[in-house]
Amino acid sequence: MDYAATTPVDPAVIATMTEALQRYPGNPSSIHAEGREARALIEQARKTVAGAIGASIGEVFFTSGGTESTNMALKNAVRDLNVQRIISSPLEHHCVLHCLDTLQRTEGTEVLYLQVDGKGQPDLEELDVLLKEDGKKTLVSLMHANNEIGTLLDLDAVAALCREQGALFHSDTVQTVSTYELDVSRTPISFLTGSAHKFFGPKGVGFIYVNGDNLIGPYIDGGAQERNMRAGTENLPGILGMAKALELALARKDEREVYVRGLRDALWQRLRESFDDLQVYGDPGRGHYKLLNVSFPPSPQADLLLMNLDIAGISVSGGSACSSGADAGSHVLDALVGDPGRKAIRFSLSHLNTMDEVEQVVNTLKEILPASVEA
Amino acid sequence: MDYAATTPVDPAVIATMTEALQRYPGNPSSIHAEGREARALIEQARKTVAGAIGASIGEVFFTSGGTESTNMALKNAVRDLNVQRIISSPLEHHCVLHCLDTLQRTEGTEVLYLQVDGKGQPDLEELDVLLKEDGKKTLVSLMHANNEIGTLLDLDAVAALCREQGALFHSDTVQTVSTYELDVSRTPISFLTGSAHKFFGPKGVGFIYVNGDNLIGPYIDGGAQERNMRAGTENLPGILGMAKALELALARKDEREVYVRGLRDALWQRLRESFDDLQVYGDPGRGHYKLLNVSFPPSPQADLLLMNLDIAGISVSGGSACSSGADAGSHVLDALVGDPGRKAIRFSLSHLNTMDEVEQVVNTLKEILPASVEA
Repeated sequence: MDYAATTPVDPAVIATMTEALQRYPGNPSSIHAEGREARALIEQARKTVAGAIGASIGEVFFTSGGTESTNMALKNAVRDLNVQRIISSPLEHHCVLHCLDTLQRTEGTEVLYLQVDGKGQPDLEELDVLLKEDGKKTLVSLMHANNEIGTLLDLDAVAALCREQGALFHSDTVQTVSTYELDVSRTPISFLTGSAHKFFGPKGVGFIYVNGDNLIGPYIDGGAQERNMRAGTENLPGILGMAKALELALARKDEREVYVRGLRDALWQRLRESFDDLQVYGDPGRGHYKLLNVSFPPSPQADLLLMNLDIAGISVSGGSACSSGADAGSHVLDALVGDPGRKAIRFSLSHLNTMDEVEQVVNTLKEILPASVEA
Repeated sequence: MDYAATTPVDPAVIATMTEALQRYPGNPSSIHAEGREARALIEQARKTVAGAIGASIGEVFFTSGGTESTNMALKNAVRDLNVQRIISSPLEHHCVLHCLDTLQRTEGTEVLYLQVDGKGQPDLEELDVLLKEDGKKTLVSLMHANNEIGTLLDLDAVAALCREQGALFHSDTVQTVSTYELDVSRTPISFLTGSAHKFFGPKGVGFIYVNGDNLIGPYIDGGAQERNMRAGTENLPGILGMAKALELALARKDEREVYVRGLRDALWQRLRESFDDLQVYGDPGRGHYKLLNVSFPPSPQADLLLMNLDIAGISVSGGSACSSGADAGSHVLDALVGDPGRKAIRFSLSHLNTMDEVEQVVNTLKEILPASVEA
């Protein structure tokens, strides 16, 4: 139940990638037959990815993942589009927060963090005020679904505010590509980022959508790949795998949502029936359907909860996997609540989970945690 | 005969990657069992790569490829190590040259290009003079084997000059990792870069060696992966595939060199026997054993040489694949010679070529080119 950290690769995607590794050795930049064949496959994959988000094919560029895509959007907006101010939130993924630290330090970019409410929603009234009060070229970076608590941003509302005030808008959509509808032909967004390994595709490949009006240059300089927007020989098997994974996920989008939401809601209900004094983070009813982040009251057993769940064969996380190699807590929960003694668990589910697993998780928690915590 | 552009993935590497895709779904940053298993595999791969170049494991970082690695070395040396001047050559790969353009433009870095001789060797006396004359913190970036003409740099000599004068030294070793010995424990080098798809590994993964004395930060900001040196969920199948490919190539290094050198020398001899007025670029006898870059005199047939070879099922290139999607010529040959009418062909061979193919290439060239060119 840690599918927000990463996902196993769909067997059909593995088949696509293995075929690509075996059959298409060419460098897509070569002009001979092997190169042209590889190029054609990449452009077909681009069509798939662009189509999935309502973009034109000229607006989608393949990268090594969501983190690189975000680095490219934020840093090159500052470098190439004269962005002097970035408005974000303290609940963003580290790839955003650490880019903002770097931009403050090396470029003197002004960085503002919006207030967030108890459910993790950034204050859009504050955003509106900030956008109106200052003539500086501004970029807003707010994620679509928070990766730890699932809170969903109203993308259309933020996009509309940004458009009104002439601000650029980047959204880290890594947790929602393939699970929530994204349509840049209707939602005016400047930059959007995706990562294949979050939707049953391979690790090491992702994409960035760059709205055609925003002429940024490459973040990784070198060859003319990706129409001079991202140098380096293209990761052909990864790109084909990502496109295949996206196709598969979109074809099953609605049925997966119903199924996973059902599991997640059942987990939440069974937890509430089984334990006292639970605290939930985010807003499960209105947040990403795959996520449930709850905490248990302080106890010696709770301190070792992740470890004991792991021993029992249950994989969950205390926060984002990316945050640390150790159980170092969560900057998201730190920003939201002031009770570090409580032990939070992020459950993130997928269509690969079952109702039996939900029962197993609840029963295991009941075995681990002290009786006083139980309802 | 275009194996300098890219290589097919070794079947044993494909098996390793397919197994990784199937069996190791974890995010290496997760602390549960799947995560720890993935982490252990990555650290094993790091040991392999570090061992292959005489580095310690703390000095090797996985990236999306050679181009990203070079961006990281050059740009972060300027950002984090106070490098104010970079000395390079006009024959470097575009990933170096375009990084230097960016650094000049955005950071005001002083960039100097050494004179090169007719065989593509940079003037090391000039380098010595430049290093001695200026107190600015300097980085030297010179590639080990030129990817178009095969010219091999004397790494030890350049490293010694740099060390004497306190300059940093980056070498693009993308064409020599696995084919020539690289030992950073004996050659004092600051940064070295590799790309798996050049040694029968997968596209989309590479590495950077960063000498332990040079404390640069990440180029891609975000999570704490790669000990805070390269954010983004690790490309586990790619990293394992790269390590496997490197192991295989090193185990066969000497036998492959003898075999490929034999093929390349036979090709050069057969071409000289078959055609008049050939011009060779670089220094085949002392350059990379896999490369032969020759030109034919101007003729209508020579203009269409690449296309006609392609039609005959022979894949070669006119320059680096990365340079362009089209047959746009070569910045390397432009810098070396002033005879754009001649049609140059880069033959780059591997252990997958045969002597029959050498004959086939020569015979096909004899069919395509006008009789007057033949010897």
